[in-house]
Amino acid sequence: MMIKEHSNSWCIVQDVMDVAREGFYESLFSLGNGYMGVRGFHEDDTQKLPHERSQFIAGIFDYIDSGITDMVNTPNYLHTKFMVEGEPFDINQGKVLDYKSILNMKRGTLTRTILWENNLGQITKMEKERFISLHDLHLACLRYTLTPMNYSGELVIETGIDGSVRNSPINDDQMKVNNKTIKLLTKVDAEASQGSGYLEMITQTRKEAVAESYVVKPLTNQEHIVENTGIQEDCYVGSRYVIDGHEGSAYTFEKYISVYTSRDGVEELKETTLRLSEEAGRIGYAELLRQHELAWAKKWHIADIQIGENQRIQQAIRYNIFQLIQTNAEHDHRVSIGARGIMHGRYKGCYFWDTEIFMLPFFLYTNPEAAKNLLLYRYHTLEGARENAKAMNLKGIKYPWMSSADGREQCESWDTGSCEIHINGDIPYAIDHYYQVTGDVDFILNYGAEIYMETARYWSSRFSYDEKKDIYNMLFVKGPNEYGGVTLNNTYTSFMALHNIQLAMEAISLLKEHDQWEAFANKLDFEYGELDQWQDILDKAVIHYDEEKQLYIEDQHFFDLEPVSLEDFKDGETPLYKKICFDRLQRYRVLKQADVIQLMTLFPKAFTMEEKLVAWETYEPITLHDSTLSFGTHALFAATLGLDQVAWDYFEKSVVLDIEDVMHNTDTEGIHSASLGISWQAIIFGFAGLVLEDGGLSMYPRMPKQWGKIQFNVVYRNNIIHVSIMEDLAEVTLSKESPLDQMDIKIWDQLLSLEKGKIKQLNKPVTQPQDQTLEQLG
Amino acid sequence: MMIKEHSNSWCIVQDVMDVAREGFYESLFSLGNGYMGVRGFHEDDTQKLPHERSQFIAGIFDYIDSGITDMVNTPNYLHTKFMVEGEPFDINQGKVLDYKSILNMKRGTLTRTILWENNLGQITKMEKERFISLHDLHLACLRYTLTPMNYSGELVIETGIDGSVRNSPINDDQMKVNNKTIKLLTKVDAEASQGSGYLEMITQTRKEAVAESYVVKPLTNQEHIVENTGIQEDCYVGSRYVIDGHEGSAYTFEKYISVYTSRDGVEELKETTLRLSEEAGRIGYAELLRQHELAWAKKWHIADIQIGENQRIQQAIRYNIFQLIQTNAEHDHRVSIGARGIMHGRYKGCYFWDTEIFMLPFFLYTNPEAAKNLLLYRYHTLEGARENAKAMNLKGIKYPWMSSADGREQCESWDTGSCEIHINGDIPYAIDHYYQVTGDVDFILNYGAEIYMETARYWSSRFSYDEKKDIYNMLFVKGPNEYGGVTLNNTYTSFMALHNIQLAMEAISLLKEHDQWEAFANKLDFEYGELDQWQDILDKAVIHYDEEKQLYIEDQHFFDLEPVSLEDFKDGETPLYKKICFDRLQRYRVLKQADVIQLMTLFPKAFTMEEKLVAWETYEPITLHDSTLSFGTHALFAATLGLDQVAWDYFEKSVVLDIEDVMHNTDTEGIHSASLGISWQAIIFGFAGLVLEDGGLSMYPRMPKQWGKIQFNVVYRNNIIHVSIMEDLAEVTLSKESPLDQMDIKIWDQLLSLEKGKIKQLNKPVTQPQDQTLEQLG
Repeated sequence: MMIKEHSNSWCIVQDVMDVAREGFYESLFSLGNGYMGVRGFHEDDTQKLPHERSQFIAGIFDYIDSGITDMVNTPNYLHTKFMVEGEPFDINQGKVLDYKSILNMKRGTLTRTILWENNLGQITKMEKERFISLHDLHLACLRYTLTPMNYSGELVIETGIDGSVRNSPINDDQMKVNNKTIKLLTKVDAEASQGSGYLEMITQTRKEAVAESYVVKPLTNQEHIVENTGIQEDCYVGSRYVIDGHEGSAYTFEKYISVYTSRDGVEELKETTLRLSEEAGRIGYAELLRQHELAWAKKWHIADIQIGENQRIQQAIRYNIFQLIQTNAEHDHRVSIGARGIMHGRYKGCYFWDTEIFMLPFFLYTNPEAAKNLLLYRYHTLEGARENAKAMNLKGIKYPWMSSADGREQCESWDTGSCEIHINGDIPYAIDHYYQVTGDVDFILNYGAEIYMETARYWSSRFSYDEKKDIYNMLFVKGPNEYGGVTLNNTYTSFMALHNIQLAMEAISLLKEHDQWEAFANKLDFEYGELDQWQDILDKAVIHYDEEKQLYIEDQHFFDLEPVSLEDFKDGETPLYKKICFDRLQRYRVLKQADVIQLMTLFPKAFTMEEKLVAWETYEPITLHDSTLSFGTHALFAATLGLDQVAWDYFEKSVVLDIEDVMHNTDTEGIHSASLGISWQAIIFGFAGLVLEDGGLSMYPRMPKQWGKIQFNVVYRNNIIHVSIMEDLAEVTLSKESPLDQMDIKIWDQLLSLEKGKIKQLNKPVTQPQDQTLEQLG
Repeated sequence: MMIKEHSNSWCIVQDVMDVAREGFYESLFSLGNGYMGVRGFHEDDTQKLPHERSQFIAGIFDYIDSGITDMVNTPNYLHTKFMVEGEPFDINQGKVLDYKSILNMKRGTLTRTILWENNLGQITKMEKERFISLHDLHLACLRYTLTPMNYSGELVIETGIDGSVRNSPINDDQMKVNNKTIKLLTKVDAEASQGSGYLEMITQTRKEAVAESYVVKPLTNQEHIVENTGIQEDCYVGSRYVIDGHEGSAYTFEKYISVYTSRDGVEELKETTLRLSEEAGRIGYAELLRQHELAWAKKWHIADIQIGENQRIQQAIRYNIFQLIQTNAEHDHRVSIGARGIMHGRYKGCYFWDTEIFMLPFFLYTNPEAAKNLLLYRYHTLEGARENAKAMNLKGIKYPWMSSADGREQCESWDTGSCEIHINGDIPYAIDHYYQVTGDVDFILNYGAEIYMETARYWSSRFSYDEKKDIYNMLFVKGPNEYGGVTLNNTYTSFMALHNIQLAMEAISLLKEHDQWEAFANKLDFEYGELDQWQDILDKAVIHYDEEKQLYIEDQHFFDLEPVSLEDFKDGETPLYKKICFDRLQRYRVLKQADVIQLMTLFPKAFTMEEKLVAWETYEPITLHDSTLSFGTHALFAATLGLDQVAWDYFEKSVVLDIEDVMHNTDTEGIHSASLGISWQAIIFGFAGLVLEDGGLSMYPRMPKQWGKIQFNVVYRNNIIHVSIMEDLAEVTLSKESPLDQMDIKIWDQLLSLEKGKIKQLNKPVTQPQDQTLEQLG
């Protein structure tokens, strides 16, 4: 019986086997639970090189060079070999009669069915299913079924854990070919016996232990198994079953994998690891899958966004949400989310501003605890940021452009690592966003204030005072637009810096209110002269603004750049830096991605509609969107300007970015995490028009005409708000009980009419009843 | 008999053994003949690591990474082991009773005598001498003498060629610790027999073959030799002698080494290599040394500079000249001179502007053929420079900031490699300098013109036209001052670019004069519109000049930088970048090295005395001289300004830079080639005041009061001019015959009186008699 399923808004189906597209599907079909991620490669793909069988665990990094780490490619627990009559089940040989891979996002499973005829005309059906449990983060389960369709003969299945994986660290320089692989893991312990195995390896320098064990169980027709052995070789443990295969009989094997590392704080690593795979084997695949699906159901209940009839976009929206959830270690406050999550080694697994500016809002409005943990990662890496500022001979703390587990700078390109400093303002911005949405005063008092103050100190030493003109310049800086050179007074960066200083000053008031200021000031050796200097900077920092045009200018020399026609340049969606080097691009008046516009999306209330329109008219026509951070930002901004069609066009590109491989690099670079996040923002902040103002939430919906409706939830100050917008109706309901745990939502009704085609403010539609907080109900 | 020699103006003597200083002496005592260079390590030092036994051959590079090469550390033909009674002669053990190393610059020899007592009280004297033949570039000779002073017993000497060397490529980033070594050589052929051996190895990627052979001959008391065997192991060939040592008997061995590579164009590499070491063995050490000394005598005859009584400075001047000659492959027009010559692997052996701007004048005025070969290297690497310009999406050619044998960019730091572009004007400048000194029209017609045109094309595409202001800006550029940021309109760079364009325009006239223009223009697809654009750039390029102050401003934002007090910063001669990172330094108004002042030394006639003084007063007080290119330039410039004492102070630092380890890095970084050259320039262009003007040579001597006299030669338009300046007398003589070959100088008298303390121009003191060219006499 072949699977009849087709693509729908929950399922992505690949029904043609195409070797050239396998890399793309491997990225697309990545599975994870935040703790660990595996790419969608075939368990038994004999062509895969050791560095291509990528399985990552959040926070497991090791040094590959002096001071430089890479996310470690961990032992491959998917490893499986299938043999038919002594020959490998190799879909590159013989004939594939039917092929289907299905990623089911609702269930969180990857299912594959292959009907394969070998050169002797023997037809074998293989069914494979895997999931990485969202219920138990240390658990992965696989199920294989082999059926000899038109013959009887010997079948062999061997499955285990392969530790001969390698890392292939990809250079910062996007144009440089990578040809090195590195072995980062050494075997510590290995055991294999009938139907189970254990492999423990340790990273080379940081000595992080990675322990994996499995139990494999034959489920059907066990009487046909003629041999069952454990295999142990070098860095490999496996179990081998030889089957006297009967025509038409299905042979199903279930594999239960347990993964723990030295980061997990368990006392007895080996025992803990073995215990879980054994217990899983006892509980059984069906029950484990049920628990996993339930965990996903809880996620979807809060995080799903439903639109009208557009199945392609509905599927893409869900894919964005699905991967955001999969790639975030929501319970672990010691890690953040890499630019390619835990699904690809690109950017060495490092964390960028992508997390705080692009991804965090999704978690902030659907799972605030996860957002808090992401921000706590930055607090835990204060020391690295302090060292980084010191290394740059500046005060306070400087968050690295590329951060790995311990928060030390991993960027090796000087112009980016040293000059693209706005991240130091982006993180405080995100903390403030968290505070505004959650009202979590304790977070500011305990963590946020220190970050605000220390980043403000950094900025105060990063501005250069010009005595003659009595101004503060931000010299040698690079804004978000990475085609811009190292230039002066980038508006985005300076605005962020000033906002950061303001946050620090506000935090002082908050600390005073809570009688914590004195102790805090002592701890940080705060001097009041610092405050004067901050105020002086707020008064005198240069922001280039053309009063007449009402134009915020990207940086001091933006209009010294050579004007060009984009038509002469652009070649489909291929980024221009593949044709023109960065050195040349910096002298052209083009943008790689949103810069001033990025700023305006972050501070929707700080600019007039006229300023926004002028910025749009100035920058949008010369923006190449050669960064995946750009489409979604433009969609969001266009929506807030009421530019419906262009908003939709940008949104479409952003939301299908990976699922339709818009950038032609989803195969080699993995899933673009920031694009997942900004697509979500484009819907919520753009189309639904949600905005924080006057101490509350407002909405200015601009429903795309392509959609009949939109329904979603946001968590605001411990309440879950269900929003439903239909053409001319917006309905907002507030849950009275904690649905995060109970999924039991009661309706708190508030009906609002919207005049079609007009923007109408829902003045603070939601108040926060004191008696309805999650904490009280949870 | 111990050597009684002391340091004098020809000899540098080390008479104390100090392990902590060995690295310094290894650099200082480097020997070479342009073809090959060896550091001054002890042949038998058992502590040395494989990457520290450095012997380089000009032009032998291999890839260490994608597109990145390193100068290959070639097999160690010095390798020797000495044993006394079965224990190694190890000066780290036992007692050193007397120790002396002598670098004799006149003879080109390194001699060492060690009187050593082992733990049994046995005293052994060891005498070692080596030279790298300047007469036959493929030949090196060693002589060892062992004498048991107070005992009879077994002595062993084993000497051979050790191919187990490794490279230790040092990162561009000066602050990054290097901890990698790489094996670049593989054995191809090895043979060893009694008293001779052959080893041929091949580089990994470029497959350059390096062949070395030796013949070793016992010279004295051969009847005491009880064993004589050849040894061959892995990448090693050697000869072992066991001696029944008699008290008071001296045992002398001579070793003749031959070195050839696949770059040498010899038909039969092995036979050629073996033939030379065998022939050398027949000719004998004494005669080979005589030939070598004669070759040096010829060099010194032209290149020596004699000053009065100051032996310290006289020695240092000779050391500078000695190393310049040793490190330049004068006969090979396919290579240039690395920033650390062929004596150290720093900067991966790459060639910088250091050659053309700092070193070339020495060769140009003492050995014009060598200067021509240096410039021909740039012509031969046109293709690499063309690819480089193309890779940067610009027209024409762009010489790499760091160039290795094939002329491809080796610099991996973006801000330097992409932005420090002035080298593209420095090379044309040097070609013009060569032309002015030699009058070699053919060179311009055949080589120079093409370089001028293609670099001018580069500049025309590198300037950015600002339509609104009708000006050309040079955006995102870094000048010679490497503490400056990536900024706008660096005066040095723009001036060089404009000079370059002028040279190209003049070359057009020259080509037309010689009826070669049309063919040339066709070959280069020259369009007349290009000429209009060049003229437009000459008219409208921005050079920041303060009319009121008569000040050339380093770059557009130099006075936006934060003013600082140097006293707060500077800590002896340790470069500031060791304490403050480059990112921070760029915002301080300080200079690492001469920038505007560098420009003014290159164009002494282009600026008024007032402009020079203003530049000096502006920039000198804030210059840190954290580049070894800086002291000499400041000495030269100060001398031309009549600032006698400060000129002397700077000169002193420059001329003893390596010999007295001013920068504290001569050990780990090797000899600073550019400093050697600029020290020479400070004497000739500074103190002697030699300047090209009005189509001839002028001199404006400003004798340091520390010197009684100065005597030197310069070669100008095929004549050797002997210059002698004594307090108030300058005497200039011109040789009538070619002394380069015959060393027979006749005097062409021209006596000039100088008013003491005043600057007086010697108007074209030298004319070029048509009948006295080198070519006619040579």
